Amino acid sequence: MPELTESVSRLINEFARLPGIGKKSAERLTYHVLRVHRNEALALADAIRDVKENVRYCRNCYNLAESDECAICRDVRREREILCVVEQPRDLIALEQTGVYHGLYHVLLGRIAPLDGIGPDQLTIDALVRRVRDGTFRELVMATNPTVEGDGTALHISNLLSEVPSPIRITRLARGITSGSVLEFANKEILSDALTGRREF
Amino acid sequence: MPELTESVSRLINEFARLPGIGKKSAERLTYHVLRVHRNEALALADAIRDVKENVRYCRNCYNLAESDECAICRDVRREREILCVVEQPRDLIALEQTGVYHGLYHVLLGRIAPLDGIGPDQLTIDALVRRVRDGTFRELVMATNPTVEGDGTALHISNLLSEVPSPIRITRLARGITSGSVLEFANKEILSDALTGRREF
Repeated sequence: MPELTESVSRLINEFARLPGIGKKSAERLTYHVLRVHRNEALALADAIRDVKENVRYCRNCYNLAESDECAICRDVRREREILCVVEQPRDLIALEQTGVYHGLYHVLLGRIAPLDGIGPDQLTIDALVRRVRDGTFRELVMATNPTVEGDGTALHISNLLSEVPSPIRITRLARGITSGSVLEFANKEILSDALTGRREF
Repeated sequence: MPELTESVSRLINEFARLPGIGKKSAERLTYHVLRVHRNEALALADAIRDVKENVRYCRNCYNLAESDECAICRDVRREREILCVVEQPRDLIALEQTGVYHGLYHVLLGRIAPLDGIGPDQLTIDALVRRVRDGTFRELVMATNPTVEGDGTALHISNLLSEVPSPIRITRLARGITSGSVLEFANKEILSDALTGRREF
């Protein structure tokens, strides 16, 4: 479209690359950026840049962090004998918001999904096995999503850990959460029930 | 949420300020930014910055421009005796895409909307009256939106111009049934417009 300036076309295209943003929404967001005060628009640009420059994965648990270790691993008040395995940082956040869990985490950064070409090697499972073998964990809580892929990932991990010489107890979240749903959208009550009612894996 | 890093929280908040983006969508967009390659995320940040730094309004017609004058005002092939009045740059773009109109434009940057506190002074109506008075336009095409506010804005402008000593012809976009629509589903207003504006076959 020669009627749009080059900068405007480019911003529409960049917005349209975001998930769930179509061409029309991208145009609307671009007109919003054009309309708002310069400082408001630049705050968004700077926030994007800062996230890419400052945020990395925790070297222990692969949670989001702004230094080598995340805030949870650095927190001396956390129980260090219990480890909760989640797929994504956003799952960790959802669990933290319940206030029920006080142990450590391990973020897999995904789930085993053969149809999407995601195998165990692309996750942080090796690091998890090392943590369990070298650590002093009493219990490992599987908090993968209650889906076929999440359950499969948990099963794969529990099989791997059964070969590790460690008397660790493996539990999973109680099915207060409904099968087929997505963890990040469950509310606090549902997640609290699931944490409190966890069972032997 | 202490579990999110500061940069991540900030980006979620910035995304949530965009129109049509709620808290959950803002989180999803933020996780997308975290996941994609650094260059892809920075391309969006840079595109936002470039739009705010490079794009301004054309000094003649208030279309978007990257220099003092927009591409249409600079185009010597455009007809300079006909002026089309639109509410927003996006309306101009929609009209340009038809390829039917070859004249110049005037972008009001809004419409008179008393309920939203937008009066004539917040639009570019003064500049339009100046252009008509000082220019050599033969015809002015009102292409405001066919809504109560768009029609009201067009009426206000035509009243103002009737006081300007200029033999300009004021027209408006034809109203009728839309191509590809079904007669039985057109409402009374649409059919009234279509009947009143009927032409020789």
